[in-house]
Amino acid sequence: MASHERIPKWKGLAVLSSDALSSVAYATEEILIPLALVGVAALAYSVPISLAIVILIAIVTLSYRQTIEAYPGGSGAYFVVKENLGVRAGLVAGAALLIDYTLTVAVSVAAGVENIASAVPFFQAHKEAMGAIIILMIMFFNLRGVRESASIFALPTYLFILSFLILIAVGIWKLATGAAVPEAPLIHETYPVIPTILLLRAFSSGCAALSGIEAISDGVSLFRPPMQKNAKITLVWMAVILSTLFLGITSLSHIYGVIPHEHETAVSVLGRKIFGESFFYYVLQGSTAMILILAANTAYSDFPRLSSFLAKDRFLPRQLASLGDRLVFSNGILGLSLAAAFLIFIFKGDTHHLIPLYAVGVFLSFTLSQAGMVRHHLRKREKGWVGSIFFNLTGAMTTFVVLVVIASTKFAAGAWMVILLIPIFVIIFMRINAHYLEVGKQLSLIGQEAPPRLEPIKHTVIVPISGIHRGVIDALRYALSISNDVRACYVEIDPETTERVKAEWKKWAREIPFVVLKSPYRSVIAPLLDYIDDVEQTTHDEMLTVVIPEFVTAKWWQQVLHNQTAFLIRAALMFRRRKVVTSVRYHLKGT
Amino acid sequence: MASHERIPKWKGLAVLSSDALSSVAYATEEILIPLALVGVAALAYSVPISLAIVILIAIVTLSYRQTIEAYPGGSGAYFVVKENLGVRAGLVAGAALLIDYTLTVAVSVAAGVENIASAVPFFQAHKEAMGAIIILMIMFFNLRGVRESASIFALPTYLFILSFLILIAVGIWKLATGAAVPEAPLIHETYPVIPTILLLRAFSSGCAALSGIEAISDGVSLFRPPMQKNAKITLVWMAVILSTLFLGITSLSHIYGVIPHEHETAVSVLGRKIFGESFFYYVLQGSTAMILILAANTAYSDFPRLSSFLAKDRFLPRQLASLGDRLVFSNGILGLSLAAAFLIFIFKGDTHHLIPLYAVGVFLSFTLSQAGMVRHHLRKREKGWVGSIFFNLTGAMTTFVVLVVIASTKFAAGAWMVILLIPIFVIIFMRINAHYLEVGKQLSLIGQEAPPRLEPIKHTVIVPISGIHRGVIDALRYALSISNDVRACYVEIDPETTERVKAEWKKWAREIPFVVLKSPYRSVIAPLLDYIDDVEQTTHDEMLTVVIPEFVTAKWWQQVLHNQTAFLIRAALMFRRRKVVTSVRYHLKGT
Repeated sequence: MASHERIPKWKGLAVLSSDALSSVAYATEEILIPLALVGVAALAYSVPISLAIVILIAIVTLSYRQTIEAYPGGSGAYFVVKENLGVRAGLVAGAALLIDYTLTVAVSVAAGVENIASAVPFFQAHKEAMGAIIILMIMFFNLRGVRESASIFALPTYLFILSFLILIAVGIWKLATGAAVPEAPLIHETYPVIPTILLLRAFSSGCAALSGIEAISDGVSLFRPPMQKNAKITLVWMAVILSTLFLGITSLSHIYGVIPHEHETAVSVLGRKIFGESFFYYVLQGSTAMILILAANTAYSDFPRLSSFLAKDRFLPRQLASLGDRLVFSNGILGLSLAAAFLIFIFKGDTHHLIPLYAVGVFLSFTLSQAGMVRHHLRKREKGWVGSIFFNLTGAMTTFVVLVVIASTKFAAGAWMVILLIPIFVIIFMRINAHYLEVGKQLSLIGQEAPPRLEPIKHTVIVPISGIHRGVIDALRYALSISNDVRACYVEIDPETTERVKAEWKKWAREIPFVVLKSPYRSVIAPLLDYIDDVEQTTHDEMLTVVIPEFVTAKWWQQVLHNQTAFLIRAALMFRRRKVVTSVRYHLKGT
Repeated sequence: MASHERIPKWKGLAVLSSDALSSVAYATEEILIPLALVGVAALAYSVPISLAIVILIAIVTLSYRQTIEAYPGGSGAYFVVKENLGVRAGLVAGAALLIDYTLTVAVSVAAGVENIASAVPFFQAHKEAMGAIIILMIMFFNLRGVRESASIFALPTYLFILSFLILIAVGIWKLATGAAVPEAPLIHETYPVIPTILLLRAFSSGCAALSGIEAISDGVSLFRPPMQKNAKITLVWMAVILSTLFLGITSLSHIYGVIPHEHETAVSVLGRKIFGESFFYYVLQGSTAMILILAANTAYSDFPRLSSFLAKDRFLPRQLASLGDRLVFSNGILGLSLAAAFLIFIFKGDTHHLIPLYAVGVFLSFTLSQAGMVRHHLRKREKGWVGSIFFNLTGAMTTFVVLVVIASTKFAAGAWMVILLIPIFVIIFMRINAHYLEVGKQLSLIGQEAPPRLEPIKHTVIVPISGIHRGVIDALRYALSISNDVRACYVEIDPETTERVKAEWKKWAREIPFVVLKSPYRSVIAPLLDYIDDVEQTTHDEMLTVVIPEFVTAKWWQQVLHNQTAFLIRAALMFRRRKVVTSVRYHLKGT
């Protein structure tokens, strides 16, 4: 990216943190739900749990500061892991990330819809449909290739931060002035005894708050110089804002006695309690929905980018490597949209059911990425490597412990699907790679003697015809231009018509031999294939070309009325060696 | 069909009447259901209604005897109507028949499943799934092209006739010996007053008994000589058997007090009452299911045959005309199966909900066909034409009245769908026809002066390459053989690679100009299209050929890893005039 296109820190924050910040919209609620299963008293744990998560945010942030330092080009977990822990580990990270990007879309859109439906209950019954519509919209914008300008991101991101800060400030103000009466103290003197597993589950769910935290370290190259310094500062800003909002919302939710509710998000309940049904409440809900949709949108650039990296390394179809061609790019966007919409329908648009799938991949890629960094420092031993190793090792170990906690406490709730999918993806990546390597070997010219010159091949041309018309004349003239041995062949359905066609042939194309093929079973294809075999055996040519007259119709639906025989011939010859099938198309005028 | 392949009457009956006879399995029940809505007393009407239907059978049979006389080749309603009432009326009959064949499959399979589920209640909860499995089985047999020998049909058809005759005989015997006590008299002295509309509805539903009655007149050519005489005799046999079984089952159902039941067919209830849970009962249910499946199977030859007639007349895609090619035939079978399975799922495998759709089309084609016969006699005035006209006119008028009754009493219950679909089909047929006529005009050489000889065209050949390997060498040699002006072009992604490829080029293919295309936006397709435009404007050739090296992979799934660029080029050039895209395929070995 040219230097003048680079962005200042405040824009970088907007572009790269929508995913991380938007998780504040659902993380608190995810902590409350498992606790509420035990009883309202258990909700007291939400504050200490969120404190633990804030500590986790701090550890991961310090760890990613090291990544920014070591990879100023800005590089995702796939690269860091592949370079330091080997290709297989890199593929595991790649698989986890691809799944995560899909889940980012599903979770963010679902949470966005839930927040809209909390404010406007009409949408309550149409959550899946609304999710689908939002995905369609994001898809449409991305297909049109609207250039994302940093400014588009800035407004909703800062509006979101501002509205949440105001919510927290007003919430505290009301408590301080006595305008609101606390339903529970922030810190309890005694906490109820509840099963550890439930505490761990609540913690695991809350860890969704960390998703997207790595985005700034992936995008270092977007920043104005000094890039690394700016990126590190932005990362810390982001972590501080994320922690403040998350801790603020969770604490106030507890003090204000927010209880998770099926038809309303925790943020919406808190918003109503603090703002009432005022204008501010709707701004809060609107900005929450907007940043969530923005977060979903980020996956639409991350997913194809990672796919193209994998494709360049020959782990995905080669074509995905070139992002320049509209059609390729479109397929990626379409695939991502379908997968996300599918998830939303399967899980009925319920964020709560998607989160268990989400967190596993997020922490798997954290762990691998940080472990890769530890290895990096051990190998490079650059200045200050001991300190760096301390941060990355702490990060790797902490996120690994969290990964194990999430995978075990959320296994049955859906984490198993991701744990199953990741190795499947890795196997697919590796089989694709093995195929490309083998093909490379087969095609290689290395060690071969180059011939003095390229020799043209000799080939017979067969033109199957069903009558004589302008399209056929074009095909015959083309055939004459590409070989000296051209034969037209005609499959006889009834002898009378054959005579008529023969007579016309003498008038229009007497220089080309006209071969009549009998068809005892009324098949058009079988006699043609037999004839091709015959020709092959008698001419001993290196190749044989079939030139088929085809039509291009003026309207798409008319296409089904033509060229079916051409299609059948093509299909029949598909796997035969040394055959070339060429269509000479005749363009029909609109009818 | 050669004379020695022709079949005797008893086999003809088996082959051609499974559709007609099998309707005995559901027609009685269809009469009972609307009557039962008023109360058990109303069921008394079932006997007079079935008598009316038997009279209708007689009228239609006498009418179709005339068709056999006039069309000894054996000809369906489409031909008779087209020839006598014009093309549009013929298309209406054709549309009605195509819909009916589909419904024959759906109704017969649904009724077959209901009879199996009546005997084995386990299947009660799995009716749709079982219907789908049976359709899959029929589809499989038809796709495999198992030749239907008349013997395969004979066994289940005669087993069905026999088991129903035994049922009726034992039923009467038990009544006569006092082993069973009649719950109602055959003929009541007084009948309850019920709304006429309900009587008409019951009658309309019972008319499903007539479906398939025309099959013998369509298949005259299958019979041994004297064909027409044999066909007429078989038709009368069939009508007598159908009437006997239908009247017998309906009368006994009434006397034995059979009341329609959601989870058991009327035939099954009657079977249990007469046979008890004996071996005979299971034979009865088994043979009923078998003849119903056989009836569904007949549609699998009728549907593609009628489609091919319509295609020959250019009302359906031309390709459907040739039944000889497996792929074409397969598509028809697949389409029919999908449509029938769809109907079964939509209507939850319930015969009762499918019947209203069925009867409209059946009687519409009867009416048109008989009316066509009237017209035929008026024009030909062959020996005995006055008598013939009497039968056909009676037939036409009667079936027309029944058609109006069915269409009006069953309109809301589903007949509207068919009434809506038929004109849509006709419009589609006519638009297809108009298209083919217009294309014929555009392609016509009539009135054109034939040139002294066919001139080859001049064309430039462009070979897009992404590197040099065996596949490319083949493509280049092919290109050299088809034109004197061959150019290879390479889209540059990074300049380093370009230099490497250029060096290899000098070694392997120095005689072909190597054109490097820059790609500022990393698109592969866009620069290539620009280059093609350039070449076109400078050479002024009549055509331009793009030769693309492609791969054929050893395993199908590997195909997705190759040839994507070829696909994109093909798609991009699809609608451009005077371009030929040729693939030279390189076969990869298994990896």
